[in-house]
Amino acid sequence: MADPSTCRPLTRASVFEARELIKGLVHHTPTLTNATLDRIASTPAPAPTESELGNCEGESRKKPANPTMRLYFKCENLQRIGAFKIRGAMHAIERLKMEPGWEEGGGREKGVATHSSGNHAQALALAAQTNGIPAHIIMPSISAPPKIAGTKGYGANVVFSGSTSVEREAVLNEVIEKTGARFVPPYDHPDIVLGQGTLGLELLEDAHDIIAAAAGVESNAVPAADRALRAPATTRTLPESKKSNPHLDAVLAPCGGGGMLSGVALSCEGTGVRVFGCEPSFEGADDAKRGYESGKRVERVSSLTVADGLRTPLGKVPWDIIYERRLVAGFYSVGEDEIIAALKLAYERFKLVIEPSAAVPLAVALFNEDFRSMVEREGGEDGWDVGIVFSGGNVSLSALGKLFA
Amino acid sequence: MADPSTCRPLTRASVFEARELIKGLVHHTPTLTNATLDRIASTPAPAPTESELGNCEGESRKKPANPTMRLYFKCENLQRIGAFKIRGAMHAIERLKMEPGWEEGGGREKGVATHSSGNHAQALALAAQTNGIPAHIIMPSISAPPKIAGTKGYGANVVFSGSTSVEREAVLNEVIEKTGARFVPPYDHPDIVLGQGTLGLELLEDAHDIIAAAAGVESNAVPAADRALRAPATTRTLPESKKSNPHLDAVLAPCGGGGMLSGVALSCEGTGVRVFGCEPSFEGADDAKRGYESGKRVERVSSLTVADGLRTPLGKVPWDIIYERRLVAGFYSVGEDEIIAALKLAYERFKLVIEPSAAVPLAVALFNEDFRSMVEREGGEDGWDVGIVFSGGNVSLSALGKLFA
Repeated sequence: MADPSTCRPLTRASVFEARELIKGLVHHTPTLTNATLDRIASTPAPAPTESELGNCEGESRKKPANPTMRLYFKCENLQRIGAFKIRGAMHAIERLKMEPGWEEGGGREKGVATHSSGNHAQALALAAQTNGIPAHIIMPSISAPPKIAGTKGYGANVVFSGSTSVEREAVLNEVIEKTGARFVPPYDHPDIVLGQGTLGLELLEDAHDIIAAAAGVESNAVPAADRALRAPATTRTLPESKKSNPHLDAVLAPCGGGGMLSGVALSCEGTGVRVFGCEPSFEGADDAKRGYESGKRVERVSSLTVADGLRTPLGKVPWDIIYERRLVAGFYSVGEDEIIAALKLAYERFKLVIEPSAAVPLAVALFNEDFRSMVEREGGEDGWDVGIVFSGGNVSLSALGKLFA
Repeated sequence: MADPSTCRPLTRASVFEARELIKGLVHHTPTLTNATLDRIASTPAPAPTESELGNCEGESRKKPANPTMRLYFKCENLQRIGAFKIRGAMHAIERLKMEPGWEEGGGREKGVATHSSGNHAQALALAAQTNGIPAHIIMPSISAPPKIAGTKGYGANVVFSGSTSVEREAVLNEVIEKTGARFVPPYDHPDIVLGQGTLGLELLEDAHDIIAAAAGVESNAVPAADRALRAPATTRTLPESKKSNPHLDAVLAPCGGGGMLSGVALSCEGTGVRVFGCEPSFEGADDAKRGYESGKRVERVSSLTVADGLRTPLGKVPWDIIYERRLVAGFYSVGEDEIIAALKLAYERFKLVIEPSAAVPLAVALFNEDFRSMVEREGGEDGWDVGIVFSGGNVSLSALGKLFA
């Protein structure tokens, strides 16, 4: 990892620079829309049944929110390695190559290292392989065999460890000592944040094009595949206000360690687009929300939420962007059932394979009454155009089988 | 259904006419590519193990084929109602509206009718609803509740019957007698064939654009989403021969009743693009292949293949196009394991939800040694550009769960 002191400042301009650096190395993934999901998002949730209400008489009189939403899905499940993580990993290595003395000091031969059992492992392995440098990936020995095979498939040297973070870090340190490899952390570093943020730029631009085309405003042509996935033009009516100024009102992104959320927040800085973090509430996985609301970062999380990519506490670098600089406008959380319901809708109605973590922002848009009331209140009749980050699609089919069976 | 004597001739020009008629009523679905599936298709299948070989000593010396293939996926799983069937249903109703005397005879009030427990039921229901005419759909009373709900959701009048074809037809005839509704069959009619064929035109054109862009030839811009789903340009090398003449060499389409396959064959007539039918071999579901090879259409099939959309025998109208006019160049079949393996690859590597029937042509490209040897032989070093029809994505998640668990 590049020494943080040599990093680019954490600004929107630096996200544009990052995009230039990783151009051609990662996919510009499509931004897609779906008429059925728009309709569900713009329909009040069914009234709770008597038994669900229990004794909450006060609640029973509360009408469900009735917002209008048009959703724009940033399909990072279609990204290389099946998740946005390749953006940060590619960017980290590009920056490393620019670090004075790295190449001369044998950095290329020493390679890079990380500990991960998730998407970051494969991302760093592929980024290193692309650059012809070795990658040492520390994985818990209990990792699922397909993940180990996937990481090895990108030519990485997989080193096994115990599964606690103490055990993993001990092995990582050993490997680094022995090889001289540079540590590339999964989220808590400016280069990673800036790399992940590049998806935000694409989402803003592509959503703009889609909105402009629907409004009949002159714009770049809407990609054919986007056209394809929208209902015939007649079914989507756009408010007058959008015709003069086609833009997203908000972006909902999942938040685990916060590298991607904070990068997306940077990509929207100064644009007027509000960015919200989305988390599972199960067993305290909504650490970023709790930290944001109490003013103190929560440093430990121990949750077995189905959204397994979001079990991590928020990192320090993301926290500064999200909280100190207030570039994230707030957090919303959803329950396990809501995540699974959103996941099923993505499969059944969108025909897209996403992982449970990626379903969390869609669950917020469809089921979180606080968020939905806010959109109803602020968006009024015109409603909101909301970007949704489908962060990844790496899910074990057997785990999926169990969820759906 | 329009009286066949008033139908347009079964030619490529009529497919273009059909496309004009249903424009704006159906999606122009994307044609996508996938570097990983290209690589798997262009790698010899692993040598069979000793135990698989058994005593077939002659076989053991046969080297697996080593073709080069670049695949272009026509994503009808992203079509309205989740399958290509909406094309035929919309076209059939457009043609009905043009039939002299239909409107004056109260045709609009009498509506349309069919028997189906599959995608055709929802397709006709939506097409009728779009036109504000009633649809009577006869479904076996044992149909899966989500299918019944889906069909009712499009405003159709669902009438239950027994599950044998005799019982279904008896109820259909009763309903038609009572209501005066016009029968719209699922595949065995020129209007349906021409409607389904429109997907072939889109596939030819979009694949041409993608090939031309990869070859650096002047062409329409490649849709951004297509760009997105291809590996960075450097990983795909195109032979010189394609640079002067970017085109598909072949299209692989699934074959059940043959309405879509024959329509696609018409859409390719005179273009030099060879069209092949793909079927499951399980329990004789390869009826079209057997009929094509013996010169006699097989009229009855009773197979419980996992590819449940392909359990139907080939219809008469499709047969004439496919066999008598030889617009289909041949058939290939695959086993249940191969279909499931292809299905899993679509989920794991493409992140697309497809139904088992839609996985059959991909299974042929990846696993059928007869097809692969032919491509190796005829495509040589340049290889072939092969269109693959992903025909639909309507799969019950619980059925999927069982397949993957």
